[in-house]
Amino acid sequence: MTEIKLDDIRAAHERIKGRIVNTQFSRSETLSSQTGCDLSFKFENHQFTASFKERGALNKLLLLSDDQRKHGVVAASAGNHAQALARHGQLLGIPVHVVMPKFTPNTKVEHTKVFGAKVTIHGENVDGSMDLAQDLSSEYSYTLVHPFDDIDVIEGQGTIGIELLEQDDSIDTIVVPIGGGGLICGIAAAVKQIKPSVRVIGVQVDTFNTAYAYFHRLDPTEHRSALTIAEGIAVKRPGEVTRPLLMSLLDDVVQVTEQEIETAIFTLLEIEKTVVEGAGAASLAAVMAHPDVAHGRTALIVSGGNIEMMTLSAVLQRGLVRKNRLVRLRVVLPDVPGSLAKLAQHLGLLDSNIVDIVHRRTFHSSTVGAQPLDISLHLCSEEESEFVLDSLRKQGYEASILVN
Amino acid sequence: MTEIKLDDIRAAHERIKGRIVNTQFSRSETLSSQTGCDLSFKFENHQFTASFKERGALNKLLLLSDDQRKHGVVAASAGNHAQALARHGQLLGIPVHVVMPKFTPNTKVEHTKVFGAKVTIHGENVDGSMDLAQDLSSEYSYTLVHPFDDIDVIEGQGTIGIELLEQDDSIDTIVVPIGGGGLICGIAAAVKQIKPSVRVIGVQVDTFNTAYAYFHRLDPTEHRSALTIAEGIAVKRPGEVTRPLLMSLLDDVVQVTEQEIETAIFTLLEIEKTVVEGAGAASLAAVMAHPDVAHGRTALIVSGGNIEMMTLSAVLQRGLVRKNRLVRLRVVLPDVPGSLAKLAQHLGLLDSNIVDIVHRRTFHSSTVGAQPLDISLHLCSEEESEFVLDSLRKQGYEASILVN
Repeated sequence: MTEIKLDDIRAAHERIKGRIVNTQFSRSETLSSQTGCDLSFKFENHQFTASFKERGALNKLLLLSDDQRKHGVVAASAGNHAQALARHGQLLGIPVHVVMPKFTPNTKVEHTKVFGAKVTIHGENVDGSMDLAQDLSSEYSYTLVHPFDDIDVIEGQGTIGIELLEQDDSIDTIVVPIGGGGLICGIAAAVKQIKPSVRVIGVQVDTFNTAYAYFHRLDPTEHRSALTIAEGIAVKRPGEVTRPLLMSLLDDVVQVTEQEIETAIFTLLEIEKTVVEGAGAASLAAVMAHPDVAHGRTALIVSGGNIEMMTLSAVLQRGLVRKNRLVRLRVVLPDVPGSLAKLAQHLGLLDSNIVDIVHRRTFHSSTVGAQPLDISLHLCSEEESEFVLDSLRKQGYEASILVN
Repeated sequence: MTEIKLDDIRAAHERIKGRIVNTQFSRSETLSSQTGCDLSFKFENHQFTASFKERGALNKLLLLSDDQRKHGVVAASAGNHAQALARHGQLLGIPVHVVMPKFTPNTKVEHTKVFGAKVTIHGENVDGSMDLAQDLSSEYSYTLVHPFDDIDVIEGQGTIGIELLEQDDSIDTIVVPIGGGGLICGIAAAVKQIKPSVRVIGVQVDTFNTAYAYFHRLDPTEHRSALTIAEGIAVKRPGEVTRPLLMSLLDDVVQVTEQEIETAIFTLLEIEKTVVEGAGAASLAAVMAHPDVAHGRTALIVSGGNIEMMTLSAVLQRGLVRKNRLVRLRVVLPDVPGSLAKLAQHLGLLDSNIVDIVHRRTFHSSTVGAQPLDISLHLCSEEESEFVLDSLRKQGYEASILVN
């Protein structure tokens, strides 16, 4: 097993200092009291390209020889690693070539090109891109920068562990998302050598849970075609370097569901006023789903904030629906003039905000004389939806909440 | 004119220290390069109740006599001032009674009650609530805590000015939203006494622009019934104390539109990964609309982050529409089996994501044999919408972008 030495992580920390944001670490009073845990967040979404990936990429770049710098680097990535490498390559004058899989959203391509990197689209997925990246590396003497299975990259990510204990040496537990394992292995290697009592807990999404399966000696289930909102940790399997490190350094690995991640994104937005991507919300999702992992003073790593605004908007609306703050009511109305006005007036008195109305008479099975109206309402709380329903029924309406 | 002494602001700063977050102040590389200005943000949305109002409320509470503390305080507010007072009243054991206008969203009532404050709903608007608050003050010997027209409150808000110059003494310009004027008068009083060369620019939304009108000696236009997304600065007029201070301390006041504020909220979410309310986005909106106000190193005050998640979701979607990243296409299809499949396949090849489809044959004026289909697409850029439209036309479709 490759050994990650504390001195090397400390050296990486000195090396990247000043070019990386020493991100805020702060306690959340509200979420601590809501979960019954003692929770603080390390906001790596506040890095310039909005993810921790800059640490490892920059450390790697700074360790290249003059000759390697001249030839440049290549990587396969559809996301944060590509942006991180492109930015610091540009700042250091090192050519960067990134291979991205087909169907990479155009925004991600643009956010990489903006830093002057060359982008080639190749492969059905990141594995396919990696094949080309390796070929390019041989052909053009580019140094291949693997997103996680590289000791220099892991040591770069490990600088978070040093920063955390500098910011608060009373930490007892650190919860970290796992994709390929570079982030958690770096952090665990650092903190276990500085303060061995700190527990390090990994989190995977249950659709991409190979590290979870390895750790618990279960059969790995590789849902290669599964979709997840946490694409930042949708990695098929840990690497040659990270896998044994995961087994030896971690105290536990837990899984979370898609819905738990969505709820955590919503919560971080509403309570902490911060934008996180799916992978970035996984650590909070883990603690909300498994509060027992948060022993003592617990640090949650918010790994990144790159989420499409369209996706975020959908997560917000789905979150409101899940909390019954956005509900669809079906109300049966007598098919006579003035019925809608009467209903709308009553809803107005209840201080509920009508978002949309659908009145589709053809497909309803009740009598021709009574027509169903589907109304979406924006409410303030779960209790309010019950109150509105009761109130409508008291007025004589046949009313129900539509569940889907 | 009331004088705001630097020593009193300094004393307030010492008084509230440790009970208030010394919020992050950081430069935005991306927004600086996008606007051609040198922009940094002061994130007051990271205060515990997500607004700067805690500073003034806490300073006021800490200055009460023992007898005043025992009797408690009263205020009229529908928002951030209420939460700020309620939180610090609870922490200090001072009873807090808040009068809120009718139609205050239930979430705001709950977010005030959660800190143990007594809430009374009274009045059509905050002026109506204030009448009752004054009555309660006389009747029960409560100390009335005005949200802005109070020297102790203004000095509390002024602590931001001291913090800012401690964080970066090279600041040349500070841009601050104006509602009643308490925030900007406090900040301007502080910085003009420490570093007189700093320019202080106020921002109002054009639907509530009385301070703007006073400053420029125009007739004030009081749009009392206007709605705004920046309800935190929807104040009818500056106070007795703040009005002369505004006139003497500020270098300029500019106005922004609703749409400019929405765009600024979207930008802060997408680029800075931070959640702001309408008033909180006004300073960025001002610089985006009037880049000339940002002389030299410019600090933008992000005053608060309390925005309804439903509103935020709408702002996101409207922002995507405005940037042509969410577009509605009308495509005319031959009314024969397989037409939709063929179109959907073509759109799939263009890598565009279909959000929804509406097919309403009854209301279209073309022939019966050709039916219009309205398709919402999620795209990555403005250029992509042109590309999709061209490509459809090349395939022989009659296609156009629907504007509303």
